Amino acid sequence: MSDAFIAIDWGTSNRREYRIEDGVVRATGRDDRGILEMAGAGYEDAIAGIRAALGDLPVLIAGMAGSNRGWREAPYVDAPARAEDLAQRLLWIEPARTAIVPGIAWRDPAAPSVMRGEEVQLFGAVAAGLVPPTALLAQPGTHNKWVEMEDGAIGRFSTAMTGELFALLRDHSILSSQLGGEIADGPAFREGVRDAQSRPLLSALFGTRAAGLLGYRADADGADYVSGLLIGADVGGAAVAGREAFILSDATLGGLYVAAVEELGGTPKLIDTVTAFVAGTTLIRSLTR
Amino acid sequence: MSDAFIAIDWGTSNRREYRIEDGVVRATGRDDRGILEMAGAGYEDAIAGIRAALGDLPVLIAGMAGSNRGWREAPYVDAPARAEDLAQRLLWIEPARTAIVPGIAWRDPAAPSVMRGEEVQLFGAVAAGLVPPTALLAQPGTHNKWVEMEDGAIGRFSTAMTGELFALLRDHSILSSQLGGEIADGPAFREGVRDAQSRPLLSALFGTRAAGLLGYRADADGADYVSGLLIGADVGGAAVAGREAFILSDATLGGLYVAAVEELGGTPKLIDTVTAFVAGTTLIRSLTR
Repeated sequence: MSDAFIAIDWGTSNRREYRIEDGVVRATGRDDRGILEMAGAGYEDAIAGIRAALGDLPVLIAGMAGSNRGWREAPYVDAPARAEDLAQRLLWIEPARTAIVPGIAWRDPAAPSVMRGEEVQLFGAVAAGLVPPTALLAQPGTHNKWVEMEDGAIGRFSTAMTGELFALLRDHSILSSQLGGEIADGPAFREGVRDAQSRPLLSALFGTRAAGLLGYRADADGADYVSGLLIGADVGGAAVAGREAFILSDATLGGLYVAAVEELGGTPKLIDTVTAFVAGTTLIRSLTR
Repeated sequence: MSDAFIAIDWGTSNRREYRIEDGVVRATGRDDRGILEMAGAGYEDAIAGIRAALGDLPVLIAGMAGSNRGWREAPYVDAPARAEDLAQRLLWIEPARTAIVPGIAWRDPAAPSVMRGEEVQLFGAVAAGLVPPTALLAQPGTHNKWVEMEDGAIGRFSTAMTGELFALLRDHSILSSQLGGEIADGPAFREGVRDAQSRPLLSALFGTRAAGLLGYRADADGADYVSGLLIGADVGGAAVAGREAFILSDATLGGLYVAAVEELGGTPKLIDTVTAFVAGTTLIRSLTR
């Protein structure tokens, strides 16, 4: 049974559109009209424009467009959650035409977390056979998710402010002048990953400045080292030793997480996020027909 | 033997001056002409102005004025260091008239740190009998020092970016809207202190946002909680359980460290920083005469 629809990955700063036919991407679009740029208005016109470009098809939206700062708020589904739960709880804007995928909440009062958009990639990674139904996954970015998939359901998850904290330190802190370089895996990055396991993070960060002042590390290595500290603290909190860890990310940032997982005794596998997103939206679409 | 001199605590953002006669403060001044405001120039005129206000006396300067961003760089003395080491290594601007106290470096390549200004308070706290010669001390602020005094010498020390990180999160992060409140010790602060012992810091920070979205904590308590997380991580890294910890700070910030040390099983004592600074500069002055 043939099917065609448009999937939109509508995030905070960016938007990507895919025309998907029988699970295969036939056309795409992308721009910087994330929800910040939209500023709460013009969503109907934007959807009309996307349909004009990609085809007059049903639309399935995932991401921050479904938040209280986006188009319409799609209430969280509680974890553990399956793709079927999301399909049943879509927020329909136009019946059978336009819908928003809800986010997921982990309602542990002692360690709560929320996601919007990541859930589609997670289900898609399993549906596409890239990740087993029970697995540990990471989704690096401004905020990195660690997710326990349990028999195909999204279970316990947490969110680390890793990318945002690096940007704050680079743009506004006393370490700024040491953090301007490109980041790559290497000795300074690995040293940071290891130091994050043995030293308190807040003093290891200042140690970057002291190491520069005292001549122990070139400032050109500062960005690698601090990235290693933060990603090392992030990965160290996930207890990856002896486990497979599936990293849903692009090769650049994902490569740093792969390196950190290796350094801490885990077995990393990098998974393509677009493949996962397309498979996830295709799955949810199929469950609504 | 009577003695009078002017001690200047010349920091990054502020300057305080004290006319000290035989160890007793007889007059003071303060303003916001820290080294950032000075921008590398006008130090001679500033000293002349201070002498015009407080008396034509010898001047002893401590703090960031002795850094490479201040007036003249006074090279670090290596820890372990005694007050006598500083007195012998003063940077004399005018012989027997104007001098800068050097900072101290902890040259452990694996965990280096530096201080400028704090050393005077540390020696002064011991000289004034407020702290025993072997003790654990903290100096909260933008950057908090943890210092092991060993038989009157400054030994191992480290620096945590606690205050700076809170300011970055409050002013620039996704948590900003939750961090505007006044901070006080209470249940939310204590919860943050405890959570910092049991949860990875980077995910506990994001948990603040999730707790707000899911209704687990009022945003009005966000500043207390995040302050508790950061100070809890800071104090937790110092292993205070079962020890006395001497907190050199004002009552507001110092009170939060006192609370965190208590929560983590230590015995805190709050020490007045002005008393310590005056005793420290008086001691160093006495060692140069």
